[in-house]
Amino acid sequence: MDVWRINLAEKSLQVEAVPSGWEKLGGRGLTARILLDEVRATCYPLGSENKLIFAPGLLSGHRLSSCDRLSVGSKSPLTGGIKEANAGGTTAIDLSRLGIKVLILENKISNGLWVLHLSMEGARFDSVDDLIGVGAYESTRLLLDRYGSRVSIALIGPSGELKLNSAGILNLDKDRVPSRIAARGGLGAVMGSKGLKAIVIDASGTTGPSLLYPEEFRQAKQILTNALLDHPQSMTYRDFGTAAMAQLCNRLGGLPTDGFSKGSTSQIEEISGEHMRELMLERGGESNPTHACMPGCVIRCSNIYGGKDGRPIVAPLEYETIGLLGTNLRIHDLDIVAQLNWEANDIGVDSIELGAALGVAAQAGILDLGDIDRVFELIDDVRKGTPLGRIIGNGATTTGNVFGVERVPSVKGQAMSAYDPRAIKGTGVTYATSPQGADHTAGLTIRAKVNQLDPKGQADLSRMAQINMAGYDTLGACIFAGFGFSTVPESIQQLLHAIYGWISEANILQQLGKQTLQMERKFNTLAGFTKAQDRLPDWMTKEALPPTESVFDVAEEDLDSVFNW
Amino acid sequence: MDVWRINLAEKSLQVEAVPSGWEKLGGRGLTARILLDEVRATCYPLGSENKLIFAPGLLSGHRLSSCDRLSVGSKSPLTGGIKEANAGGTTAIDLSRLGIKVLILENKISNGLWVLHLSMEGARFDSVDDLIGVGAYESTRLLLDRYGSRVSIALIGPSGELKLNSAGILNLDKDRVPSRIAARGGLGAVMGSKGLKAIVIDASGTTGPSLLYPEEFRQAKQILTNALLDHPQSMTYRDFGTAAMAQLCNRLGGLPTDGFSKGSTSQIEEISGEHMRELMLERGGESNPTHACMPGCVIRCSNIYGGKDGRPIVAPLEYETIGLLGTNLRIHDLDIVAQLNWEANDIGVDSIELGAALGVAAQAGILDLGDIDRVFELIDDVRKGTPLGRIIGNGATTTGNVFGVERVPSVKGQAMSAYDPRAIKGTGVTYATSPQGADHTAGLTIRAKVNQLDPKGQADLSRMAQINMAGYDTLGACIFAGFGFSTVPESIQQLLHAIYGWISEANILQQLGKQTLQMERKFNTLAGFTKAQDRLPDWMTKEALPPTESVFDVAEEDLDSVFNW
Repeated sequence: MDVWRINLAEKSLQVEAVPSGWEKLGGRGLTARILLDEVRATCYPLGSENKLIFAPGLLSGHRLSSCDRLSVGSKSPLTGGIKEANAGGTTAIDLSRLGIKVLILENKISNGLWVLHLSMEGARFDSVDDLIGVGAYESTRLLLDRYGSRVSIALIGPSGELKLNSAGILNLDKDRVPSRIAARGGLGAVMGSKGLKAIVIDASGTTGPSLLYPEEFRQAKQILTNALLDHPQSMTYRDFGTAAMAQLCNRLGGLPTDGFSKGSTSQIEEISGEHMRELMLERGGESNPTHACMPGCVIRCSNIYGGKDGRPIVAPLEYETIGLLGTNLRIHDLDIVAQLNWEANDIGVDSIELGAALGVAAQAGILDLGDIDRVFELIDDVRKGTPLGRIIGNGATTTGNVFGVERVPSVKGQAMSAYDPRAIKGTGVTYATSPQGADHTAGLTIRAKVNQLDPKGQADLSRMAQINMAGYDTLGACIFAGFGFSTVPESIQQLLHAIYGWISEANILQQLGKQTLQMERKFNTLAGFTKAQDRLPDWMTKEALPPTESVFDVAEEDLDSVFNW
Repeated sequence: MDVWRINLAEKSLQVEAVPSGWEKLGGRGLTARILLDEVRATCYPLGSENKLIFAPGLLSGHRLSSCDRLSVGSKSPLTGGIKEANAGGTTAIDLSRLGIKVLILENKISNGLWVLHLSMEGARFDSVDDLIGVGAYESTRLLLDRYGSRVSIALIGPSGELKLNSAGILNLDKDRVPSRIAARGGLGAVMGSKGLKAIVIDASGTTGPSLLYPEEFRQAKQILTNALLDHPQSMTYRDFGTAAMAQLCNRLGGLPTDGFSKGSTSQIEEISGEHMRELMLERGGESNPTHACMPGCVIRCSNIYGGKDGRPIVAPLEYETIGLLGTNLRIHDLDIVAQLNWEANDIGVDSIELGAALGVAAQAGILDLGDIDRVFELIDDVRKGTPLGRIIGNGATTTGNVFGVERVPSVKGQAMSAYDPRAIKGTGVTYATSPQGADHTAGLTIRAKVNQLDPKGQADLSRMAQINMAGYDTLGACIFAGFGFSTVPESIQQLLHAIYGWISEANILQQLGKQTLQMERKFNTLAGFTKAQDRLPDWMTKEALPPTESVFDVAEEDLDSVFNW
């Protein structure tokens, strides 16, 4: 495996041996290492000094169930700090097949819009000015026509070209739909600032990534697969997808409702995972409640949400989108939420950041909650980059700043996802302290068997979750792979040995996680972050959230203790 | 002298004795002390937890030439750090006459727009919903009609009501024109967030502030006045006002031109102080190149800029406005700049922040440089609070953020004034390191007899200037009072003794200055600032500025040494 380093200004590729200190890292941990080694933390995120890094996880590339994730890293234009967002799909697999341990994009192309094409022949650049402003779905279709239907693609929508800070990077799922988004933190804006519309990866002719001990790998894989298949949560996610969260969060009083002013809705039945599953089964056609985003995944939490005619509206429809673009905006019609999700994907924006920004805009009187037509209109503004669209497209914090709205649900400039931290306090600790800004994937605590409203002990819970998640993100493992790994933790050591021959300790997951978090914290410190930024917004410590009437009251000393281990 | 503490939510006044630790402070130093003592540094600046503080300087209230300035302090919604902006006019005098050492506005009024009326009878609140959205000039006329022509007024324009972060607080000059603006850092937005349109101060019936030793005061006053009258710079400012800077800055290559892309203009003659003086003398009528903003000022650097008919277009027209709304936008017609300045004042925005934001908007293609009609159109957008107007009205940093523009001339979120730091590097050090964000009034170094392009020694220069200015701001002395005090420094000790009976050391100015800066730095540290924020924007360290072709190259260690004394 090599480092592929692209100088965009020169349109050149340099293939380098993996330097010492990078070998035993992958995914999120590797992006953090490289950012710390090579990017000045105070640089302008959309300037030529920033780098955009694509790193498959340590376990990626082998079609291990739920372990083929791709990490994308950069300095975030949204938070001003370090950023890693990861996604499933096929990109990590095909990068690995080409022998790419990490792809580093440096500098930027000064003019026009380009495709970076990677294959066994190396890198080449094709002008795609005809794709300027073209949505992600249509762009994907055209690129697959042009480059062949078996390539992997990482691409941006119009929002990335506009350098909006809610722009993500879309990756194709196993059916070549651009649905797996490294969504958070404005990575799409970084890609747009560099003049790239897409990275096309053609792994044809490759034999697949090497395995040191194939038989050991086969055994370990079987153990993991069995553990996943046996875990009761796997079944829940297979049946209901992440939307299984809707009922749970509503019950806990942590479902963002009406602009984070309530934690539950009486219309929960209409947007629940159970209802969504029924709809899909009833509608048939291409609808499918159980769908894998990565080849080989046995959980298959993804879905294809079809309309009344059975034709797909969007795939997948996920809980966080239902929360932020649905209940948060007083919209309880899954068909509408699915259409909004399609729009967000096509524009290439993070549906969480978009929904949160619209909720803030509603407080400023830009829209009425529940006004579906107006929401579509405003999303069209984002697509076109009108001044109002740019405000919203730059996210919830910018929207609040421009309109003078206090009640912005964000930390370090990044919007919270669909878990109100006043009712799910461990996740609130994660929002407050994660180097990534507010992000449930950095350490979700909702399934812990504790009183979610009790401020005590939540920092310990979050610490553990953040360490484990940073570890999984470094392995390239999906959050749900944890269901399996947690019952057969030794399989991580076995897999790392089978693939690389590494002898690791039993707590290798936590070692990787801690190391990653420490690097991320160091980057943020250099960027000018202090514990003053490791806080939830003031208003959430004061405004009680119905129906639990809880405020966020985890002690500041607890927040400051999260990274003391 | 007392502390007048207003609880806006309760519309109540509490008159308190001056607590220990506050007695020997005034102006900027006192606002810093109170913010540090009473305001949580991480609070939401436009929320009820923030306070708005009006503090006359230690020497204010006695009609000492150039020493009647008012400091307004708060946590800034523009920078997120501490903020003090000061202004001349009559507000500080009348607050002092009422025996108010400092006015502290706490909490906020939840509904409507209000006047806070202060007099010997205490405080009362009058609803002024009829003034919602009314410009500062018309509002002043109506308020003077309502409250009598001899009151002092501190008020906001529509921008403050809209909570735009470039909104300032206007004060009346001795002719009751709302022209003395505590402009920087969004203090007008804080006042708007609190539900106040204006503070009306009626000092009738008062006998004036007490003096411990009147005869000693008279003597010291005479010494200061003579020193001011004798200083050659006083004459320059009397004749040309601050616009004297235009030729000087152009010669040094530090005049912001065409969006901070050049440091000089071939059209300098059209916008110079000399030309402006000629125009005013030639036009006659109410035009007047020599005008005092505060009663008793012997420098009279202010002016009344009249149009062809001799009627005032704006008063005064100052250098920073000519730089930012003029040459920065490729506008070289003083009549036009004067009209733009009137608009800015009427809306109540900082003309520096507005001009810088428009320069950034030009880079985003929102206007062409030199397109005067478009500039007026956009300023009207700000007045109306359209989405585009709100972007621009929130300042240069927000404009750059929303449009993805790198070349933003700002530090800590606040726009630079009309001294390009690449050509006047000591002032660049001040921009970078001042706790106030980029601000020439925090420590201008342009008159130092050094090579302004040499990076060496500039930190020392800035340190001295920042200490002295923080001292003057605490005394309530105008920057130009320094011309006098620098030749008779002992007069500061004499005046403090004559007024208060204090025995102070020869370096009292520097003592006050250091103390003030230390408090401000402490507040910012608590608010989450580190040395990473004590930097100029990256692009100014890389992009050479014609005609000197200089970049900002003061060493980071030098920047970090500014507060080591």
